[in-house]
Amino acid sequence: MNQPISRYPVPKLEDLPSDVRDRMLQVQEKAGFIPNVFHALAHRADEFRAFFAYHDALMLRDSGLSKAEKEMIVVATSGVNHCPYCVIAHGAVLRIYARNPHIADQIAVDHRKADVTARQKAMLDFAVKLARMPEAVTEEDLQPLRAYGFRDEDIWDIGAITALFALSNRMAHLTGMRPNDEFYLLGRVLPASK
Amino acid sequence: MNQPISRYPVPKLEDLPSDVRDRMLQVQEKAGFIPNVFHALAHRADEFRAFFAYHDALMLRDSGLSKAEKEMIVVATSGVNHCPYCVIAHGAVLRIYARNPHIADQIAVDHRKADVTARQKAMLDFAVKLARMPEAVTEEDLQPLRAYGFRDEDIWDIGAITALFALSNRMAHLTGMRPNDEFYLLGRVLPASK
Amino acid sequence: MNQPISRYPVPKLEDLPSDVRDRMLQVQEKAGFIPNVFHALAHRADEFRAFFAYHDALMLRDSGLSKAEKEMIVVATSGVNHCPYCVIAHGAVLRIYARNPHIADQIAVDHRKADVTARQKAMLDFAVKLARMPEAVTEEDLQPLRAYGFRDEDIWDIGAITALFALSNRMAHLTGMRPNDEFYLLGRVLPASK
Amino acid sequence: MNQPISRYPVPKLEDLPSDVRDRMLQVQEKAGFIPNVFHALAHRADEFRAFFAYHDALMLRDSGLSKAEKEMIVVATSGVNHCPYCVIAHGAVLRIYARNPHIADQIAVDHRKADVTARQKAMLDFAVKLARMPEAVTEEDLQPLRAYGFRDEDIWDIGAITALFALSNRMAHLTGMRPNDEFYLLGRVLPASK
Amino acid sequence: MNQPISRYPVPKLEDLPSDVRDRMLQVQEKAGFIPNVFHALAHRADEFRAFFAYHDALMLRDSGLSKAEKEMIVVATSGVNHCPYCVIAHGAVLRIYARNPHIADQIAVDHRKADVTARQKAMLDFAVKLARMPEAVTEEDLQPLRAYGFRDEDIWDIGAITALFALSNRMAHLTGMRPNDEFYLLGRVLPASK
Amino acid sequence: MNQPISRYPVPKLEDLPSDVRDRMLQVQEKAGFIPNVFHALAHRADEFRAFFAYHDALMLRDSGLSKAEKEMIVVATSGVNHCPYCVIAHGAVLRIYARNPHIADQIAVDHRKADVTARQKAMLDFAVKLARMPEAVTEEDLQPLRAYGFRDEDIWDIGAITALFALSNRMAHLTGMRPNDEFYLLGRVLPASK
Repeated sequence: MNQPISRYPVPKLEDLPSDVRDRMLQVQEKAGFIPNVFHALAHRADEFRAFFAYHDALMLRDSGLSKAEKEMIVVATSGVNHCPYCVIAHGAVLRIYARNPHIADQIAVDHRKADVTARQKAMLDFAVKLARMPEAVTEEDLQPLRAYGFRDEDIWDIGAITALFALSNRMAHLTGMRPNDEFYLLGRVLPASK
Repeated sequence: MNQPISRYPVPKLEDLPSDVRDRMLQVQEKAGFIPNVFHALAHRADEFRAFFAYHDALMLRDSGLSKAEKEMIVVATSGVNHCPYCVIAHGAVLRIYARNPHIADQIAVDHRKADVTARQKAMLDFAVKLARMPEAVTEEDLQPLRAYGFRDEDIWDIGAITALFALSNRMAHLTGMRPNDEFYLLGRVLPASK
Repeated sequence: MNQPISRYPVPKLEDLPSDVRDRMLQVQEKAGFIPNVFHALAHRADEFRAFFAYHDALMLRDSGLSKAEKEMIVVATSGVNHCPYCVIAHGAVLRIYARNPHIADQIAVDHRKADVTARQKAMLDFAVKLARMPEAVTEEDLQPLRAYGFRDEDIWDIGAITALFALSNRMAHLTGMRPNDEFYLLGRVLPASK
Repeated sequence: MNQPISRYPVPKLEDLPSDVRDRMLQVQEKAGFIPNVFHALAHRADEFRAFFAYHDALMLRDSGLSKAEKEMIVVATSGVNHCPYCVIAHGAVLRIYARNPHIADQIAVDHRKADVTARQKAMLDFAVKLARMPEAVTEEDLQPLRAYGFRDEDIWDIGAITALFALSNRMAHLTGMRPNDEFYLLGRVLPASK
Repeated sequence: MNQPISRYPVPKLEDLPSDVRDRMLQVQEKAGFIPNVFHALAHRADEFRAFFAYHDALMLRDSGLSKAEKEMIVVATSGVNHCPYCVIAHGAVLRIYARNPHIADQIAVDHRKADVTARQKAMLDFAVKLARMPEAVTEEDLQPLRAYGFRDEDIWDIGAITALFALSNRMAHLTGMRPNDEFYLLGRVLPASK
Repeated sequence: MNQPISRYPVPKLEDLPSDVRDRMLQVQEKAGFIPNVFHALAHRADEFRAFFAYHDALMLRDSGLSKAEKEMIVVATSGVNHCPYCVIAHGAVLRIYARNPHIADQIAVDHRKADVTARQKAMLDFAVKLARMPEAVTEEDLQPLRAYGFRDEDIWDIGAITALFALSNRMAHLTGMRPNDEFYLLGRVLPASK
């Protein structure tokens, strides 16, 4: 069960450029472990830097979407792309942000039957369509989003997160990226409220 | 016929951060015009920077793939994603790099019937599969590529270019990005050899 | 969050025929709770009896497949049918039988990338094909199974479990069946070995 | 042309448990021959009993659907599942119940172009969707059925018949089940009215 | 039940150009009735003439395919195109040419499970692929046909019959063409051999 | 680069029946070269005659559709059928008739994003649906066309052109038909207006 986390060589921390290593050590300090996507993408430092710059620009940005909603988009689109790394790793993040131990499994199976609001369902309908049938997305698809109060910048967020994980899912399939064992259990028990 | 090049606001050059503007002016100097993807993505400078950093890391990198072969991947995967901007703009680039006025239209319609080598056809088969059915890509799909002499780093290039344009195609569909008129004619007449 | 477990009326235990109620109480004694599929299907006692008779005939039968392998088939085929009840409930059962806290999430996302043996992958390839494209299953599909040592009766088991959950998934989608909260966490922590 | 009716062993009548044999003899008395589904499924008596218990619970039940309408569902869903046994055998039953020698062939090719009422078309639209894309069935799909006067119990009947034949079609594909020659001609000539 | 045979006006025989009328009267003399495709296409005499000229060039041509095999192609490809007129009308013709009352229903449901030779199955595999996924047909698809002894002219016949009925099926869907009642029963009882 | 224009023998002009040869010489006089479809189909003179009779009956007919609109249908449906010959050859014709050097590339990639009127988009939606999913075309699909003012005869034109190129695309895929080099550049530069 000591399976490789990528088909490609995984560099040792000490062999990495310092900015890449520092980024990974920061994550480790915060999360307690280094998610395998960092190890796998570190194989090429320039692409690593560009990927996480894109990621931060979108995921850390102030937005009409909550952090949990951004992760819902990641889990739903990675689900329809059948990407084990992204569903399992971002499923954990979604459980934590949403403070809901059930939502990630529900959305991974099918966002249409999940415990989300009608507004969130419209958001995920759009994301899943752009993920799998991008050519079918036209001006008309923006109307239901606007009807639910999404502003144009929010719609860019929905679409751009979908687009970034279209890239990410494909890198995960290309490299055979394997989720860390830690992700499976994270966020499955709600912290007792004070 | 004075159609918008994006559904989103397009910033004026003078309003852009200087690094973004400089990048655009460099392209203008080299190509004679600024491709609309720069105008459209400049709406968000951080994402613009990350996108072109990713692009340069992959497309300018030394590789077992020629520049023309990299553009073949862009045209073939953008073709199956029905992305007008990417097919028309990168079709022009492909014609120029390949010094072949017919190859882009052929690949855009169907790479399987195009005038490419068997090795290039294997490369495009892999790219198109990863573009449209990423979940179906497994270890077995690497065998035909290796049999044609692609090294593991070349395969990363094929996969990562496909992944980046999976992102790019979705941004183009999201924004309704419109190709510059210049692209349609570029590279259609071979320069007379000296 | 007090969502109905079925679109259809759910009978009270005391209003059920005694054989149906007894079956449910037995499960409760063994599992600690009554899975919602019993509540939902109890709406029609005759169909309830037939369903669980079929279930027991297949799932309790001695077989060349282990109990965990039978549940792998349920999870993989329910995954491609996007059935929340069956993926989440049988995912729990699979984790327990396989004594593996990760396997169910992996198979639910994509059995091709899961930690299963080559023999199990062949079994799940067949099941998933029969689940989604039954018409494409021909004599030729039996060859890889036989090559892995599956006997004809084992192949019947694989096919019939797939067929029964083709029925079950559709009843779950028809009734909007909701998994019990208990299932999400079951089997996620391995019992300490003695 | 003496083709096997199943890939699996077909037990002799005299070797069967008496309840299974009795059921088959009753059918023979009524229909004049024993449909091959009985022979093929008798290979496993417990599953045989469960299957026909389920079948009778649904198909013999009083319902807002006529007997002909129930068979329309079987023929339409078996048609989209490309199941020769079920289309040809239940096509015969449908011709007889509907007293219409053309309807089964029409529905087997495409229920949308068949001589059915608008109400029946809505019923078959729902059944075919549940048969082939069960995950896409949501609460919204019930509205057109209710608008045509189907009650909730009728909708359960439509869905459950579809679900049972999802199972049955897969057993037929698994076993290579072959229709009896008798079915092809049954019900093709209307009995002269008295 | 007095349904129109076409969405478009159906000209009276006496109003037709004499060559069109003569063609129809010849068919009537031979078959005992005029198939509705003649009535429906007669709405435009020039297209009628071109269609039947194409039809005769292919279907009456000496070929490595028997007349029954040509009709198998029509029934199989019209089946996957879900064309009621062509399946029901040419199903009758196939039964007669093949002197086999079962073969048309089998092929209409799924040629892969029908009582055809391995050579005929290869022929129908090719035809069905060209009918539904024409872009996927490449040089490699000709190899299995050649291995079964089909010459290049035979392969043209297979492909061209498929192509002509790709046209014909679409005209039938466009016009809502309705098969004559006579077709349903034709060829279902084998003439007693002398 | 001296690739064959067809997998099948291409007859010399002097060996052709005089009516076939005359037709080809007329085209040559008008266009300056003989499109390869004439060479390739001349392999069988009777089918050649029927094909071009059908073509002329539809394409030269007075119609509610302009010549450019007829070619839009050819390019859009040949695009979704991934037919290099038809996209590239008729793309040239479309550019000339529409006096628009960009429209053919746009429609070939995706008619939904092309610079066409809403009326033309409805026309192409219908054509593309009939081209790829003919069974899904029902009476309801005619409503949007009528709402845009298409008369029934115009709708026949749309459907029949789609049907004829369903045939033509398949003959091109069957024969591996190769477009003439001339087509790639034709119509790409607008003639200076006087």
